[in-house]
Parts: sequence; structure tokens; C-alpha cells
Amino acid sequence: MKITTVKGTNDYLPEEALIRDYLQNQILEVYRSRGFMRISTPAIESAENLDKSEGGENLNLIFKILKRGDKLAEAMASGSEAELSDMGLRYDLTLPLCRYYANNKAKLMSPAKCIQIDKVYRAERPQKGRLREFVQCDIDILGSESENCEIELMDTTAQALLAIGMKDFTIKVNDRKLLKSFLTAFGFDPAHFDSICITMDKLDKIGVDGVAAELKEKAFDEAATEKLMAVIAGGDLSLEKVSEIAEDKESAARVARIIETAKTLADGKYGIVYDITLIRGQGYYTGTVFEVESHEFRGAIAGGGRYDHLIGKFIGESVPAVGFSIGFERIFGILMAQGFKIPNAKAKIALFYDSDKFLDAARQAEVLRANYTVSMLERPKKLGKFLGRIQEAGFDGYLVFGEGEEPKLFA
Amino acid sequence: MKITTVKGTNDYLPEEALIRDYLQNQILEVYRSRGFMRISTPAIESAENLDKSEGGENLNLIFKILKRGDKLAEAMASGSEAELSDMGLRYDLTLPLCRYYANNKAKLMSPAKCIQIDKVYRAERPQKGRLREFVQCDIDILGSESENCEIELMDTTAQALLAIGMKDFTIKVNDRKLLKSFLTAFGFDPAHFDSICITMDKLDKIGVDGVAAELKEKAFDEAATEKLMAVIAGGDLSLEKVSEIAEDKESAARVARIIETAKTLADGKYGIVYDITLIRGQGYYTGTVFEVESHEFRGAIAGGGRYDHLIGKFIGESVPAVGFSIGFERIFGILMAQGFKIPNAKAKIALFYDSDKFLDAARQAEVLRANYTVSMLERPKKLGKFLGRIQEAGFDGYLVFGEGEEPKLFA
Repeated sequence: MKITTVKGTNDYLPEEALIRDYLQNQILEVYRSRGFMRISTPAIESAENLDKSEGGENLNLIFKILKRGDKLAEAMASGSEAELSDMGLRYDLTLPLCRYYANNKAKLMSPAKCIQIDKVYRAERPQKGRLREFVQCDIDILGSESENCEIELMDTTAQALLAIGMKDFTIKVNDRKLLKSFLTAFGFDPAHFDSICITMDKLDKIGVDGVAAELKEKAFDEAATEKLMAVIAGGDLSLEKVSEIAEDKESAARVARIIETAKTLADGKYGIVYDITLIRGQGYYTGTVFEVESHEFRGAIAGGGRYDHLIGKFIGESVPAVGFSIGFERIFGILMAQGFKIPNAKAKIALFYDSDKFLDAARQAEVLRANYTVSMLERPKKLGKFLGRIQEAGFDGYLVFGEGEEPKLFA
Repeated sequence: MKITTVKGTNDYLPEEALIRDYLQNQILEVYRSRGFMRISTPAIESAENLDKSEGGENLNLIFKILKRGDKLAEAMASGSEAELSDMGLRYDLTLPLCRYYANNKAKLMSPAKCIQIDKVYRAERPQKGRLREFVQCDIDILGSESENCEIELMDTTAQALLAIGMKDFTIKVNDRKLLKSFLTAFGFDPAHFDSICITMDKLDKIGVDGVAAELKEKAFDEAATEKLMAVIAGGDLSLEKVSEIAEDKESAARVARIIETAKTLADGKYGIVYDITLIRGQGYYTGTVFEVESHEFRGAIAGGGRYDHLIGKFIGESVPAVGFSIGFERIFGILMAQGFKIPNAKAKIALFYDSDKFLDAARQAEVLRANYTVSMLERPKKLGKFLGRIQEAGFDGYLVFGEGEEPKLFA
């Protein structure tokens, strides 16, 4: 039998699992303290829902579950791969949330402030930092168009990141409507917007000339490209500049208000910047999009945005919605690499006993549990050697039953 | 798009999810206080491991994951259903634990005291109380043959059940070796042991005559059946009686010691009984088996046993192991039906604000969070009506921004 995990998934050792639990609980507590409420949905969704969910490239990464019995035999006979499965594992928590909201609308408050901390599955090509089973920590506000929702999500996500010791991060903000209006002003074809932004996003790396060359290579409308390059070469892609060019002044004003208020709440503890090149892959975003960039990790550690039409696909009427998701695995990776330790953990001791003294030892263990985490262990033959092992395993001390009342703590 | 969950799975409302988290955390805390350490394994395992895992009837209930791309095309071309999948969702936490131990042996303490609280998947025929996605709470001790492990697991499981308010339960204990020796003494064919026990287990319901009739109907060895019926008719299936008949006095003595010591630790807070008819379905059990029966629920709420050979299938050498698993969904069902309330929860209030006062309200919310869980909500047009809704949703009070410092709590 195979002893390794299936490709792209992990076993977590006890000390890793303890830290994962601690971090998830800290995030959960920050979310809950702000009135968000955790909900829970199944990891399995119908294939129909997954396929229609506008998840962008993620739709190619769905793990499908095989039909069973007669249904499977029929599907095999049909010769069609698509017939083999009618369910799959969720690739994110947004689609299940929308289905959940549609399913439970009558029993939920409006607006509903939801937390989801759970596993999702993607058949990614395994590589460093890309897992096939991973945890996301999402908050969403459903049922409100107010831009205050965006601010609350940004503030709450940032507070959660601060609570677990993340430092040096910046929230990047953009707005799909404003972006569209900006690019439209130059005369670009809306079909090219994503591709243009992917190139613009490389400005830091390849410079103005590099961006110009790549845009030319991609052969978008020449006149539009020239006008855009003039702006880029001017070195100013600030919100003010973008707002000047874009016709959609309402979106521009909204983004400005969101950033200004969120900055005041941030109080210098983290950055908030406008970034015209921020896209986010999912097709379902309709307005604000945001992403948290860690300067240490050089990459996104959280992302989200407004998706006002996705719930409507379930219930026929549009329900405004906005969400922010922390990519838990990246955070976990960063903190572990930094040697993360759980603050104020209760000391853990071993109580060694001789087999025939189990009952009396159990009673002493119960007394000691008022102050310690106590693991009862049969006294090994070579206690001295064993002490090194338990210290490695994270124990803080030990007591041999019958040799006193208080444990000896390791130096 | 479909708004309901896939068959046999549940959405949990915020108040349900809160209680599920609370209960799981209480169980986890009891486990951890006794030195067990949580580990985490993927929900997906290789088909090979799942198929060879001796899971009894559960093997028929595995959700299989479809291959992808070229591999799927090849499998379709082969025309063989078995070729379509090489992974599946775990049906319990014991098989993944054994693979985990084999995979991480060098990094684990011996004995390893492990906790798993996680979701498992079974393609059960949907019916009341049978879910296709459900949570199990397992503790296991790997690497020790000592019967003290059994006692520690019984005590720890019972303490966890008591911590979440479960009352009126009894731990039933049996031992596969003792049972085998008992039935062998009458001359039964070992192949019939399971079937005999299933009938004996009905003694309460169908009486001595009923059991006699069913055993006769099943047409086991006639002389053996007669001798067994004489014992059953005698009305004494106690451990003492069984031990008298069985040749395996060592197992009899072990069971007696386990029960006696566990009873002393139980101190009358829950029952512990020997039950010759207790089988447990899994083929991998080798010695002690146990099950917790809730008198309120009239059914098993936890179960486990010793499985000394399962890990050996991975690493070639036998590693003694014993585990106890709480069936979380049954417990959750019982407690919810009893109107369970989380003790000592922090009061949750709504802070209503006018949209343009968001920033100042956010600052007041932060101050209030020292004492309350505070959810910021835009002031609705009809506040009076809305107050009823938030009370229903579990809020304990509210404050309108600008109308004072302290929230008004609902009566």
C-alpha cells in the first residue's frame, strides 16, 4: 500500500496541525468579533452548479466524482466522458456560498455577514506553493450595495492578518467598472481588457519600453495602444489620473471614498493603494476587486471583490455581494518559514508511570491538568534517552509518578 | 442552477455552525488536555489504499474521483469501470491514520497519541441520520500493546462526551479474541461468528425463544447451537460466565482488568458493561472493541477498538494500535433536539449607523468589542421591525450610533 499522500496534498505533523488550528482560530475570532457568522457547506457540489459558476480557469481544475451503479454503467455505455460524473469537489467557497444563500435566504439576516473557513480542491499541476487540497478563509457580505461593505471587509481581513502576526502588507484596490471605462476611453476592444492589464501589470519588471513592446506584439488597436502608452510613459497611473481619463466618474468617486476611509481605519498599520493593473481571474466580479500583497512573500495572500450577479443565477433576482478570501496556505507557509511559535501556550508535560500504577497515575494526571496539558506515558526502559525525544516532540517537561508532585520543566 | 445541497449533505445555518464549532472545540480541548495531538490528513486517498483497507461494508460506499485528460480517455477506451478512477474520498479516519503513521513514523513519538476531527464521505442510501458527508472525532494510540491504552481511550472519550453535556451513556466492551474462544468452545465454525453474534444481539428484543429460533433457522452446527442456547437460556452472559467457558484465559483476564480500572475512573458518571454480542463491522479489529450507547438516542454514538495489523500493511512490520471514534453527527443531532445552548457566550450586539457616519461608528464598534461581539449594520428604514429580525438571528441587543455609549440588551 502507498504510504505517501496523493499528489498535491499534505499530511500535517502534530506541531504543524496545532499551528494551523491556532491560526484559523485567530482569524475566526477576529471575523466573529465583527459580527460575521460562520456557515458551513458541503465539499461536494452538483456538476451543473460548478460548470456554470464563471470561475475562470478554475473550471478546468475541478475534481469530478464518478457516478455509481446503474448510472455509471449507462454513462460508460454512452461513451461520453461528460456523462460519467454529476458531482464534483468545490474549487472555491464563493460558488457554494451563493448556492447556500439561495437555499437558505428566508432564514438568513439581510445583509448576511458570512464566514467560511474550509477546504477547497483544485487539480493544479503540483508545484511549490500550489496544493490540490487547501484551506481558504472567506468573509462575505450578501444583500448590500453599500461601499461600506468593501471597507468593512478590507478592515476585517487586515485585522485578521495582523492578529496572526503578518506584517508588511498592502491592500491593492481596483474597480472593474472604472477599469473598463478607462480602457474604453482609449478606444480598446473590451475583449482585450484582461490581456492589456496582464501586460500593464509587468510595468515594475519590464519597464515602460517592455510594456510598450509587449502591447505592440499583442497587436491591439494601434491608435489606442499609442494613447495608452503615452499615459504609461508619463509615469502616472494614480487614481486621480485614471479618474481624469475615465468617463465613469461615479465609479471613480466610489473607489476614492473606499480607499480614503479604509486608509483612515488602517492608521498606517498596513498600506492601501490603487492599482489599475489589478484584475483577479474570476469572471464573476462586477465592481471593486482587491488583493493583499505581502512584501515578504512577494505575492498575493488574500483576494476578493464584488460579485453582484452570481447569486442571481440561482434565484433569478440580482443580490449584491462582496467577499474577501485569505489564502491560508500561503500565510501558513510564510509564518512557518519564520519559525512561528504559538504565544502563551499551556505547558505540556509527560507523566511517566509503571504499568501497574496506571490508576493512581491517572488520578495525579487529572490534578495536574489544572495547570498543564498532561500526557500519560508508560515509563520507557531508557528514560534519559526518551526525554530527548519528548522534548523534540514539543513537551515542556515531565514527572515520574511517585517522584513528587510537580513536574520538572526542561531548561 | 440547483439551490439545494447534493443528496445526503447539509448546509448549516450560522447558529448551527456556531454550535458545531463549539462542540468540536470542547471535544478537541479534552483530547488535547490529555496529551493527544491533532494531526491532519487529506480527504483524498489513493484508490489502492482504500480498496485494501478491510473497511467491511464501507468499501462499497466509497466516492471515487474521476481521472482526467489523457488518462481518462485511455480508461474510457478500456471499457473498464475500475480504470476510471485512481483516487477516492476517505470513508473513515482510521485508514488515513495508518498511512500517515507509515509516512511520518520517523518524526512521530512512540507511542503516538493522535487526534483527528475531520470530514469523511460515504455514499450511503440517504435516510434520517445517515449523511454522505459527516464529521468523526477520533483518538488513537499507535505503537503500544498496553491495555492501559484502551482504558485511556475510554476515559478520554467519556470525558469529552461529559464536557459537551451528554448524559446517560454506557460503554460496551468486548474482545474479538475472547469472543472467538467462547464460540470455539461450543464447536462453531469461525466463518459463522459474525452471524451468530448478530442474532445474539437481538436477545433484548426477541427473547431467548426468538434467538433460539433464529439460530436454528440459520442452520449452524446443531450440537453447537444447542450448547450455546443452554447458556443463553441460563440468562448469564456475564464476563465471568464467558471467561469460564472460553479457553483463552489471558484475554478474559485482560478484559476484566480493563473494565474494572475503567469503572473506577468512571466513578459512576457513566456505565461500563461487558457485552458478548458487540461485534463492530470493520474487518481490521483484532482485540478489544468498544461502543458507546446513548440511552436517549437508543444507538451507538461512538465506537472503536484495537487494530494491531492494519499499519503493518503499509510498513511490513506489525504496529499495535487502538482507537475510539465519536460519531459527531449523532451527538449534534441529540443535543440540537434538546435545545442546546452554548454556555457563557459573549453578548452579540448590532451597531446601527447612517451610511455617512461609517468611520466614526467603526471607531465606536472597536471600543465596544472589548465587551461585546459587535456587528456594524447600516440603519434600516424600519428599525423597529428590524430589531425583531436580529433578535431571531441570535443578537442580544443593539445600539444606534449617536444615541449613547452602551447597547440596549433585549429582555
